[in-house]
Parts: sequence; structure tokens; C-alpha cells
Amino acid sequence: MKHIAILGSTGSIGTQALEVIEANPQLFAVSVLTAQSNVDLLIRQALKFKPLVAVIGDVQKYQILKEALAGSGIEAKAGEEALCEAVLLPQTEMVLTALVGFAGLKPTMSAIKAGKHIALANKETLVVAGDIVTALAKQHSVDILPVDSEHSAIFQCLVGEKSPVEKIYLTASGGPFRGKDFAYLSEVTRHQALKHPNWVMGAKITIDSATLMNKGLEVIEAKWLFNLSVPQIDVIVHPQSIVHSIVQFTDGSMKAQMGLPDMKLPIQYAMAYPNRVANNFKRFNFWDYPSLTFEAADTKTFRNLALAFEALEKGGNMPCIINAANEVVVAEFLKDGIGFLQMSEVIETCMAKLDYVKEPSIEDYFETDRQTRIFAQELVGAV
Amino acid sequence: MKHIAILGSTGSIGTQALEVIEANPQLFAVSVLTAQSNVDLLIRQALKFKPLVAVIGDVQKYQILKEALAGSGIEAKAGEEALCEAVLLPQTEMVLTALVGFAGLKPTMSAIKAGKHIALANKETLVVAGDIVTALAKQHSVDILPVDSEHSAIFQCLVGEKSPVEKIYLTASGGPFRGKDFAYLSEVTRHQALKHPNWVMGAKITIDSATLMNKGLEVIEAKWLFNLSVPQIDVIVHPQSIVHSIVQFTDGSMKAQMGLPDMKLPIQYAMAYPNRVANNFKRFNFWDYPSLTFEAADTKTFRNLALAFEALEKGGNMPCIINAANEVVVAEFLKDGIGFLQMSEVIETCMAKLDYVKEPSIEDYFETDRQTRIFAQELVGAV
Repeated sequence: MKHIAILGSTGSIGTQALEVIEANPQLFAVSVLTAQSNVDLLIRQALKFKPLVAVIGDVQKYQILKEALAGSGIEAKAGEEALCEAVLLPQTEMVLTALVGFAGLKPTMSAIKAGKHIALANKETLVVAGDIVTALAKQHSVDILPVDSEHSAIFQCLVGEKSPVEKIYLTASGGPFRGKDFAYLSEVTRHQALKHPNWVMGAKITIDSATLMNKGLEVIEAKWLFNLSVPQIDVIVHPQSIVHSIVQFTDGSMKAQMGLPDMKLPIQYAMAYPNRVANNFKRFNFWDYPSLTFEAADTKTFRNLALAFEALEKGGNMPCIINAANEVVVAEFLKDGIGFLQMSEVIETCMAKLDYVKEPSIEDYFETDRQTRIFAQELVGAV
Repeated sequence: MKHIAILGSTGSIGTQALEVIEANPQLFAVSVLTAQSNVDLLIRQALKFKPLVAVIGDVQKYQILKEALAGSGIEAKAGEEALCEAVLLPQTEMVLTALVGFAGLKPTMSAIKAGKHIALANKETLVVAGDIVTALAKQHSVDILPVDSEHSAIFQCLVGEKSPVEKIYLTASGGPFRGKDFAYLSEVTRHQALKHPNWVMGAKITIDSATLMNKGLEVIEAKWLFNLSVPQIDVIVHPQSIVHSIVQFTDGSMKAQMGLPDMKLPIQYAMAYPNRVANNFKRFNFWDYPSLTFEAADTKTFRNLALAFEALEKGGNMPCIINAANEVVVAEFLKDGIGFLQMSEVIETCMAKLDYVKEPSIEDYFETDRQTRIFAQELVGAV
């Protein structure tokens, strides 16, 4: 029985993780549930899955949580520090980090230091501070098991392989605006951007998919997860989202992981690793997909992907800058505060203007994040 | 340094195996070379690769071989018994069985009994007597490493996986006559049948690919290599021959092995396993294959594939019957002694008429093979 702490249990990944746990009570139990603000769902989840602790990020909702859980034996907590403490519970063997954005960094580091294996659904943790986080995981003999479907695919293809990787291909659906031009993109709304053709995901990652920033962040994540150099990472647009990614080995042989787009599979794989668990998820059928197609990513129109490669090449705090700027512009786009194409403009300006730090400490990353957000917000205000 | 005996060194697989060995002199050496009748090439290969022994199957060519190798320190031998003895050499660690047809069975069993790992390019060995051969390999702790590209693909996808297989998909190019009807097939010549769209292979396997019997034999081979039941094995036509086969696990996740169609890759993989060896084989490029397509096999027109599934379902000596009948009709087709469609007719009649043995001994298999060849030859004569 694996006891799992779920950070971000009310989001898309969190709720699907709980479905997997519910289907496999003999394998998994919940030790901790945390949510940022959706206290109603957190309460329902807590009463159903009986964790030891439930944490609400928004301290103003603490009383609601506390009263609802009174007499249940579940401890109610609130705030960021409580979150970082909750992952330390000795009963927890694995922490599923399904928070959104930079907010995942601190609790993930806390969990690693406490020797908990990480099921990583918060790619921003590795984007921002991949060098420090992977070194810390190594130091504490902690597995970082990717939940992103692309990285889970690479990870699955690498199982049992002793030889070096020559190259990886991260597949991208291309998002809802694949094939569109600047004129079209200048007019798109958040409602259009939120309609992903293949995947059902949270709002932030769905916008990131529409701008291709999600793929850019994944490129950076892949660098750290699999210890690759930039030229070893390629992105290929595969609109059907069936081939989730591909590894090419030093002998030229390639292995791909495939399946219907369903996040429950990589979630379950990360939680059950090194085992696979039988399930009733819908199976892929070739007759529904007689043709799997591949094309180059349009990085001229979708500049975020090129910017992410540039940030990774430059290294240092540049990926941290691109991530912070992106979090600001996506939040603004979701409030109709900025247009689709302006997102890349703000990010590019941040990359050009913020102070570059070549070998940042963890404090430098926090400071870069803080400064970038302020500057990006100013730029948005001036738009 | 791995010392390898190559049985069938002058054929398509044999010569490509020698190319791999030549490119990796620090990894591989040749202990034995054998050929059925191409004594000139065997001599050239022997003088170049310096095996301990060279064996010519055709005893009438023994003198030529002996004289050519005089003074070279390479022992010349001839005949089937010499072949079975040659695999016993203590210096040999692995035997690559690249002979054609039923003739591979005896030397492969000799090699297994001597504790040699097998790189299996002779699928007929497993088709005919898969139960006995795999049990023997288990008893002698011998690896059977597949060289067929499809089975190498499955094997590569299974590396490091601890969980059961739900299903495998063997891919088939469909051969040169994919999409053709009976009227067309009744007129095709051996020259047309020998033009495989993607793979460069020996004559027998190329005809088997045109009739889909090759895929049928591969289905039977897969059953024994991977310990599968018949419903776990599916065939899917993939005309580009890039995805070499696919495994579906119990969680629904699928892994595919991919690459350009080049037999040197699976040959090298089997020889170097569990390592992969860097090479300069041409790499796959998505821009050359923007679309990978999949379709059902037409088993109504290409009846051999359906017959092979039927033989596998029936079990016993039925796969041995289908293999022997097929060897006879392919040899006749290559001599223009029989038409394309008549090949299936003869095979089907053999399956209906020969004595069925439910649990054959190895002697039963040899007797079935002998009787089937006589009967099939009679049928061909009556055509």
C-alpha cells in the first residue's frame, strides 16, 4: 500500500489521480490532500479519501475547512508553510505535485529533502530550478517520476535501457490554433484558446498548449529529467496526440510510447512505478486513427517555443524568467487583460531586460521570479 | 569480445551480420561460418573473418573449400552433421541461425543443448517446434534473441518491463501486392513477387512477404518467443514499414519500436544485447514520412495469413505442416512451377489431409515435415 500526498488535489491532475486511487484501494491510499482555493471540493475529497491532513492554501478559507472536518479525525491546516510541512509526514511515501506554476517549487523541494519520491505534474519546478532540484533528488536518492504524458512516454521507453540516448522527440498536438497565422491569432479569445483538440487539462496548461509555451517548458523539463543537451531535444507536431513521445538510441533504434490521450495513464504509471496496473481505460484502436501524421512546429508564428529553446540555451536564470513572465501573461490572458500575440512580446521583453544570472542559487531563483513578475505586470499594464 | 557462429553466412542476414561484425571488431569475432552451396562467397568470407571452422552444406563442394582454405588455419568441413558439430565449439558464445526453412531446426537444437545463446533469424525453427525448442532453451538457460525486425521490436519494447503483455501488434508492409485482387494475383510472376517495397531480403522470405505467409509464420514465432495466446496477437498492415511492431501492456499503454527498414539494426541488437552499439546507419527522418498509415490485413485475398492463424489455433503438428507445405510451394513458385494463388491451395489441402498429431515429439515433427513435403510435391505435380 503506497501512501500518497496529493498537492493540488482539486485540479485536473489531482482529481484524476483520486480516480486512479479510488479504483485501486489495494494499492494506494491518500495521506495528504491540498488545494489552493476550492475548499468545497477539498472537503468532499477529504471526507471520502480520509487523509491524515488536508491543507487549504487560501488562509481565509481555513475556518470552513476546519469546521467541515471537525470530528472526522482529519487535521485541517492552511497556508504555504502548512503545505511544506504536510509533505513531511512520515506515512507519506510519494508526493504527487499537481500544483500550478512556480508555487510548486518550495513544497517539492521540501518533499525531496524528506526523502519522498516525487510524481511530478508541476513541470515549472524543473523549468525554474532544474539544476538544483535534480541534484537534490540525487542527493536524497529520490525518484522524480514524470506525470506529463510526453515525459512519461520517454521514461517508459527508457525502462530497462542501459545505453545512452541519442535524441528525443517530444510530440506536440499543435494546439487549437495549429496552422493559423498572425492575423487570426491577433483576434483569438480565451474561450477559443481553452478548447484543446485532444487533451482535457487545467486552464493554465491549456493556454500554454495553444501558445506552444507548454512544449517549450517541456523541452526544459526534459533536459533536466533525462540529462540531455539542447541539440538532443526535438519537437514534432503530431496532431492526433497518439504517439506521446519518442526516444532514439545510439544505434538509431527508436521507441515510442502510444495510446489514447488520457492523463490517467501517466498518473497511474508514475504512482505504480515500476509496476503497471491493469485498468479499464479505453484502448487505442487503429481503425479510429488510420493515419498518424507528423509535421514541423511553426516557431515563427508560435514564438514561445523558440523563446523557450533560447532560454534553455542561455541557461542560468533565463528559464526562470521565461516561466515567471509566462505565468503573468497567461493569468492576464485568462482575464482578457492581454491579447494572444502580446503574450510572447511580454515574455521576450522580460528575457531581454531582466538581470541575467549565470549560476543562480535557489535564492536567486526566488528573486528572479519576484522581479520578473513585477516587470511583466508593468509591461502588461502598459499594453 | 563475443565469438559468434553464423549459420547461413552467405545469405542476406549472414552477409549483413558480417558487415556488423566488420564494423565492430572490438566487440565481435567469428568462430564459425557455414553456407549451403555458395562456396565461393564462403571462401572469401572465411579468409577475411578467420573463423576456426567453415562448413559447406553441399558435400560435393567440400574439395573446393578445403583447397581454398589450405594453409589458412581454418578447418574445412561439409554436410549436415558437420554443421551440427560446428555449433558445439567451446569458443562460440552465440549462434546466429540464418539458414532458410526447416533445415535450421537441428543445428539450432544442437546449439541450445550446448548452452549457446541463439540469435534467431530462422523463424521456421519456432514455427515447426516452438514448444520443444523454447522448453529446451529454458532448460539450458539459453537466450533466444529474435532477429526478425518485428520480433526484435517486441523484444526491445519488453526490455525492463515487469508487467504482463495484454496484446501485441505485428506490423506487415502488405508486400508488393497489397490491395490487389484474385484476378491480378492469378497472373503475377516471381519477378513481381521478388520486388519487396521496403525490405531487401532473401528470396524465400520475400515470396512469403508477398503471400503474407511470412506474417503468418511470424504470428506463430511470436506465440513461442513471448509466451502469448492466439487472441493476444494481432497483425496490422503498415505500408511504410517504419513501426516495426507494437506491444500493449495491461494498463493500456503501448510501446512501439520504429526506424528505417534496415535488417542490420535487429541483427546488431541481437548480437550486442543487452547493449546497444553506436553506428552510422541512416537515421529515420519524419519529413520523409509525414504520415504513418495502418490498415487491416486482407486475409480473404491473402489466405496464407488466415491459414497460419488457423494452424496456430489447432496447434500440435499443424504449424509444422503449414511450414513444410509452404517451403515446397515457394520453391516451386520460384521455379515457375506453380502460380501465386495455387500456393495457398496446396497448403490448405495439406492442412486438411495430413495426419494431425496433438502432442508431437521431435521425431513426429521430422516425420510430419517429411510426409508433408512428399504430399505437397504430389499436389504441385498434379496442378
